[in-house]
Amino acid sequence: MKKTEILIVGTGAVGSYFGGKLVRENTRVSALCRSDFDIAREKGLEIQSYNGDFVFKPAEVVRDAADLSVVPDYIVVCLKVLPDINIAGMIKDAVGPGTAIVLIQNGINIEKAVADAFPDNELISGIAFIAISRVQTGIARHTGSGKLILGNYPRGVTDKTKLLADIWLNADVPCDLSEKVTRERWQKMVWNAAFNPISVLGGRADTLQMVDVPESEKLVRQVMKEVLALAKATGNELQDELIEGIIDRNKKMRPFKTSMLVDYEMGRPMEVDAILGNAISIARELKINVPRLESLFGLLKLQDVVKKTRDSS
Amino acid sequence: MKKTEILIVGTGAVGSYFGGKLVRENTRVSALCRSDFDIAREKGLEIQSYNGDFVFKPAEVVRDAADLSVVPDYIVVCLKVLPDINIAGMIKDAVGPGTAIVLIQNGINIEKAVADAFPDNELISGIAFIAISRVQTGIARHTGSGKLILGNYPRGVTDKTKLLADIWLNADVPCDLSEKVTRERWQKMVWNAAFNPISVLGGRADTLQMVDVPESEKLVRQVMKEVLALAKATGNELQDELIEGIIDRNKKMRPFKTSMLVDYEMGRPMEVDAILGNAISIARELKINVPRLESLFGLLKLQDVVKKTRDSS
Repeated sequence: MKKTEILIVGTGAVGSYFGGKLVRENTRVSALCRSDFDIAREKGLEIQSYNGDFVFKPAEVVRDAADLSVVPDYIVVCLKVLPDINIAGMIKDAVGPGTAIVLIQNGINIEKAVADAFPDNELISGIAFIAISRVQTGIARHTGSGKLILGNYPRGVTDKTKLLADIWLNADVPCDLSEKVTRERWQKMVWNAAFNPISVLGGRADTLQMVDVPESEKLVRQVMKEVLALAKATGNELQDELIEGIIDRNKKMRPFKTSMLVDYEMGRPMEVDAILGNAISIARELKINVPRLESLFGLLKLQDVVKKTRDSS
Repeated sequence: MKKTEILIVGTGAVGSYFGGKLVRENTRVSALCRSDFDIAREKGLEIQSYNGDFVFKPAEVVRDAADLSVVPDYIVVCLKVLPDINIAGMIKDAVGPGTAIVLIQNGINIEKAVADAFPDNELISGIAFIAISRVQTGIARHTGSGKLILGNYPRGVTDKTKLLADIWLNADVPCDLSEKVTRERWQKMVWNAAFNPISVLGGRADTLQMVDVPESEKLVRQVMKEVLALAKATGNELQDELIEGIIDRNKKMRPFKTSMLVDYEMGRPMEVDAILGNAISIARELKINVPRLESLFGLLKLQDVVKKTRDSS
């Protein structure tokens, strides 16, 4: 039987982890990467996991989609969502008529550009819940969770999506299927839109500090309310109780640094547009008032310009 | 003729400048200070001014109000407005029946505690417009402006207030009188509430960057609108055109660091409560929605806790 051909695009921490987990007897997993090219080809990508270390050694490593020797059944994109990354352009030479494109990415409304570029291909939207970060080139450290939610964009679940979920499930990666993946994305946004920006803007705060300082807890809560109102206006109603649940859990959990804060501290670009910018654009279209999301967005955009000015002087 | 007795409380940059300018033939100006005590007594407080350097050598320097040898005609308070500074307690032993208390301080609604503590004394509210900062103990550098607005609290202008204004005017300190000093305070708040917090939260931005980055300019504008709505609700209507005027001026002016940013960079406490906390309390009482002021306040409060936790570990 022909092996399932999979191309992982982006071999950062998330790509290495979920890509590595797809390597099975009946799969052949390649990788498209740039800065990790040599190490991915020579040694493979190392994952130091609290669940057991492993190495993701791709079957093929390419710098360019055109160099891939096969037409993949799945292209799994694990890149950060940044304004200057053109995913459609990056993958187009590897996309065949039967290729499903999978986006394992953060943020809201991130599928549209890819859906427009490949209207005849299946598009699977994926959300990762994982505490993992790169500690050096080719090495990621996985410290918690490791779950996925998959669903077709804009809705539904096809057999091809189920098949991919099965491969992960067989590798002990919890992988839920959702008929309304956009709703799941909004649900993740409730946490993301509050904790990620506030951790950076609040002077590098951890998750506990953000809900422990009363004025900040209030802000967290109000930002989450804005996201809930926005989700509802887009037809993705979420339970109000979600907010208290999140705050309670964050009060009890061991404090940790958000992914945006980790990026900030490492001087790496942050997913400000994917998380806040897209939500604010939707709010503008739907004439929903999101003053707190706009405040956080304005401050992060300002920080970005100030930092670039300082770095270049 | 008996000299006018004046006690300056707080010999930071603002106190040294405006205190020093009060030293005239017909005045006797003393100072209450703590950390500057020795230098104020021995050498005096030096002001390096773009308008000409001078030294403020107080007639008497005391650590405690009880130690002052005279009952002052004016007590001029030039302290930052911080939650742990109890001004009434600090000055009470120097307040006589005829003493006017003058507050040259930032923020909104900062007079109430002093007015309540000394109901029978004249209370003069003052607003300073000056670019000055302390460069080392006993030395301040004055780089721009240097204007005052004075008025009695809550309203009116008495002869005693006019007399004080005249002393400053004779020393070439522009000093306007206002029958509605609270309105002037709100007017200054329009600038303060936007630029001070955003400069700190926006990654140490200067005044030009804040109006140059579109998302930040929008935030500046919206914060100013919230202050205008709040001022109006308290009976202090300001012109809407004020906002565009401020933004235009900041685009043309040579960029500078806000006072809150200077404090932040020096690790000194910032006037977060005087500028934002008091405004938010008023908004709550009047049921006015100020989501952006609350966002800035929540983030600054969080920063403060995070910083203290980090400093103490």
